[in-house]
Amino acid sequence: MAKDKKKIYKPKPVSGFSEWLPEIRLIEQQWLDHIRGVFESYGFASIETPSVEELDVLLAKGETDKEIYTLTRLQADPKDDKDARLGLHFDQTVPLARYTAQHFNDLVFPFKRYQMQKVWRGERPQLGRSREFVQCDIDVINVDQLPLHFDAEMPAVIFEALSGLNIGKFEIRISNRKILLGLLEYLGIEDTVSVTRNVDKVEKLGRDEVHKILIEECSLSADHAAQILDLAIETTLDNLEPLNNQMQEGLEELRFVMDQLAHLPPHAIIADLSIVRGLDYYTGTVYETRLLDYPEFTSSICSGGRYDDLAGSFINRKLPGVGISIGFTRLFEVMQNFDAVKGHKKSPADILMVLPSEDERANVSAISRTLRERGFKVEQYHAPQKIGKQIGYAEKKGIQYVWFPPFDAGGKNEVKNLDTGAQTEAAPESWKKS
Amino acid sequence: MAKDKKKIYKPKPVSGFSEWLPEIRLIEQQWLDHIRGVFESYGFASIETPSVEELDVLLAKGETDKEIYTLTRLQADPKDDKDARLGLHFDQTVPLARYTAQHFNDLVFPFKRYQMQKVWRGERPQLGRSREFVQCDIDVINVDQLPLHFDAEMPAVIFEALSGLNIGKFEIRISNRKILLGLLEYLGIEDTVSVTRNVDKVEKLGRDEVHKILIEECSLSADHAAQILDLAIETTLDNLEPLNNQMQEGLEELRFVMDQLAHLPPHAIIADLSIVRGLDYYTGTVYETRLLDYPEFTSSICSGGRYDDLAGSFINRKLPGVGISIGFTRLFEVMQNFDAVKGHKKSPADILMVLPSEDERANVSAISRTLRERGFKVEQYHAPQKIGKQIGYAEKKGIQYVWFPPFDAGGKNEVKNLDTGAQTEAAPESWKKS
Repeated sequence: MAKDKKKIYKPKPVSGFSEWLPEIRLIEQQWLDHIRGVFESYGFASIETPSVEELDVLLAKGETDKEIYTLTRLQADPKDDKDARLGLHFDQTVPLARYTAQHFNDLVFPFKRYQMQKVWRGERPQLGRSREFVQCDIDVINVDQLPLHFDAEMPAVIFEALSGLNIGKFEIRISNRKILLGLLEYLGIEDTVSVTRNVDKVEKLGRDEVHKILIEECSLSADHAAQILDLAIETTLDNLEPLNNQMQEGLEELRFVMDQLAHLPPHAIIADLSIVRGLDYYTGTVYETRLLDYPEFTSSICSGGRYDDLAGSFINRKLPGVGISIGFTRLFEVMQNFDAVKGHKKSPADILMVLPSEDERANVSAISRTLRERGFKVEQYHAPQKIGKQIGYAEKKGIQYVWFPPFDAGGKNEVKNLDTGAQTEAAPESWKKS
Repeated sequence: MAKDKKKIYKPKPVSGFSEWLPEIRLIEQQWLDHIRGVFESYGFASIETPSVEELDVLLAKGETDKEIYTLTRLQADPKDDKDARLGLHFDQTVPLARYTAQHFNDLVFPFKRYQMQKVWRGERPQLGRSREFVQCDIDVINVDQLPLHFDAEMPAVIFEALSGLNIGKFEIRISNRKILLGLLEYLGIEDTVSVTRNVDKVEKLGRDEVHKILIEECSLSADHAAQILDLAIETTLDNLEPLNNQMQEGLEELRFVMDQLAHLPPHAIIADLSIVRGLDYYTGTVYETRLLDYPEFTSSICSGGRYDDLAGSFINRKLPGVGISIGFTRLFEVMQNFDAVKGHKKSPADILMVLPSEDERANVSAISRTLRERGFKVEQYHAPQKIGKQIGYAEKKGIQYVWFPPFDAGGKNEVKNLDTGAQTEAAPESWKKS
C-alpha cells in the first residue's frame, strides 16, 4: 500500500484575533482574576450573556454600525430562513439592556452587575484594531431614580482594579455633562451632539483647531466657541460659576462625587471639565482614564458615565444607570508592546515532583496528592528519566520548586528552590513555600 | 413639542443560547472555578484561542460538519472579499491542533493545557440542543511518543473535578480501543470504523439489536458478531484472553491505567470493554462518564481518549496526545432540570453595610474599605433609608451579614447574621465570619 502523502495546511494568525502563549495567558488570568475580585468585593454580581443577540436587538437603538458580525450556518438550507438573524455582540451595554428588560421581574434593584466577556467588531484589519477583545464592565441599574452614590463608587472600584495591574501610574478624569450642556443651553446652542463631540477632541487637536471647527462646522460665533473652550480647558471646580440650574446641578453632582473619593490619592482622581465623551447617551457624570507613564498611548483605557434610560428600546420602564468599562484586551496588548508584560511561567505548577524510578510511581503519586490537598499545584514528572533532565524540565516551564521524594525505603523528602538554589528536607504534610 | 412615542422591541430568548440569572451564574462560576483549580493543581496551563478560525483550518481534517457558523460583516463591501473566511470553532481540539502547530517552537513538551471556552454549533433549534456551550478540556501533547502515565492522569483529574460538583455519583468508564481493534484484526474484519461505531451503540440499543446490525449492515457472520459482542459485554480485565499482539498491548495499557487509579473509589473508575467511542481518531485509551443518580440522562458527560497524531494537518511532526472534555453547559443545564442547582445569592457580597444617615457616609465607607482589605466582599447600601428596608434588601439579595456601623460618636459596630438571627458586637479590624 502506498502511503498517503500528507497535505499540510500551515496555519497563520488571523488578523485582529489575538492569542497568547501559556506564560502570557497566565498573566492575563492574574489580571482578570484581580479585576473580578475587586468587582465582587463591592458586591457586583456576574452575568454572562450569549455571544449573539438577535439583529433586531443589536440594531434597536438605531445603531447603524457597520462593524457587526452576523452568523450564517455553513450549510444553511432554505428552510432555515425563518430563523432570527443573529449577530455577535459588539459591546456589553446592549446585551445588559436586553437582559435587564427580559429578566426585569427576577432582578433585585439596584442591580449591580459585572460582565467580562469577549466582544466582536468587524473592523477592517488594515486599521490594526482588534476584532475580538475582552471588556470588563460594571454597571448599576435602578428603577426610576439612581442615587449619586454609585457615580462615586465607579471610580473607587476602577482605582482599585487598575492599581493591581502592572500599568504604572494612571489618572481617572471625571466630569459631569450637565455643566457643558448647561452652558450650551444658556448660550442657546441647540446642536449639542455635534458641539460635545468636537469638544471631546480638544486634547487630541488642541484648542485652536477645535475653536475653528466649532465656528466652521457647528456655526458658532467666535465668542460662544471661546466661552465653551474656556469652560472645558480653563475652568476648575473652584472657579466655575454656574450660569443656570443645569450647570449648578452638574457642579453639585461633580462635587459630591469628588468628595466621596477624597480618600484616594489626589493625583489619581481628577475633575476635568474637558471630559465630555463623544457618546450622546451620557447625561451626567462621565469618566475617562489615561496611562501617565506611557504618554505615547493617548486613548482612554477605561471610560463610562451615567445614562438616564438604559433599556427604553426593550421595556416601558425608566431604568437609569451608571457604568464604566475597562478595554481589557487593548490595555493588555498595549502593555505587552511597552514590554511591561513578561511571563516566564509556562505552567501554573508550584512544584515539579520528581519520579526517581518506575517502582516509586505509586508512592510519588501519593505524595503529590498530599501536597495538592494542601493547596499546592503539583505537576508530576511522567517518566523515570535522569534527575538532571527532570530539573531541566522544571526550569524550562518556570516551576519554582523541585520535589525529590525518598529514593528508597527510609529515605527523606527534599525540596529544591530553583530561584535560590537552596535544597532542604521537607515533609509533604507540613511543607510551606520558602 | 409632541413627545415621541417610544417603540418597544420586546426581547425573547434566542433558542439554543442560554443565559442565567445572577444567582445561577454564581453557582456556574463556583463550578468553573473548582474545575479550573483542579486542572491547575495538576500543572495544566490555560490557553485561550480566538473564537474564530479560518474555515480552511476548521475543515482541514475533512470535516464536513454542516453545523459551523461562518461570519459575515453586516455591511461588508466587495473589497473585503479577499479576507479569509472565518468560522466559529465547534470544539477545542481543532484549535488546539492549530495552536500547537503554529506555536510549536515556543512550547515546552509534554504540553499540558486546559481550555474552558465557549464553542458554537449551528444545530437546528428544534432538536433542543445548545448552539453555544462551554467545554472544559484537558489535553497533553508530546512529540513522537507520549508516556502512558498521562492516560491515567486524565481520569484522576476528572474524578477530582467532578467530585466537587453537586452532580451525585458518577462512573468513569475506561477501555482501550486496541483490544477491540485487535479482535477485528484477528477476525480479518476490515471495516473497523463501521463496526466500532455500532458497538458503541450497545448500551443504547441492546445486544440483540446491535448483533442484527453487525450482520445486516457490516456484513459480519453471526459468529463474528457474537464474538465481538462477547468481548464488549461479557469480558472483563480478568477473563480477557488476548488473541494477538494488539489485544495484548491494549490489555497491558488498560491494566497500567487501572493500576495507577487504584487509590480512587473502585465504583467510580470502571474498566468497561464496551466503551469504544464513535470517533475513529482514538487509537488507545478511551473514556466516558455517566451520571449514576440520574439514570434518565444516558449521555456521557465527560469523554475523551488517546490519539496518535493531533496536528498532522498543520505540521509535519508526529504529535500524539491524550485528552478529555467535560461538556460543561450541558451538565449544568441537566442538573438544573433535575433541580440540583439552586441559587439564592443574587450578590457575591458577604456583608451589606448599613448607611444610618447621610452624615455617616464617609465613616461607613471607611469601615467598608477596612473589611474589603481583609478579604470580605462588602456591598454598601446606597441611601440612608429605614433600617428595615436596608435589611430587607440584604435578605432579597441573599447577603448573609448586615453590618451596623456606629450610629453616633462613641457608638459600636454590630453585625447581624441573617441565617441565624444572631446580632453581635464586632470590630472591622478583627471580625470573622461566624
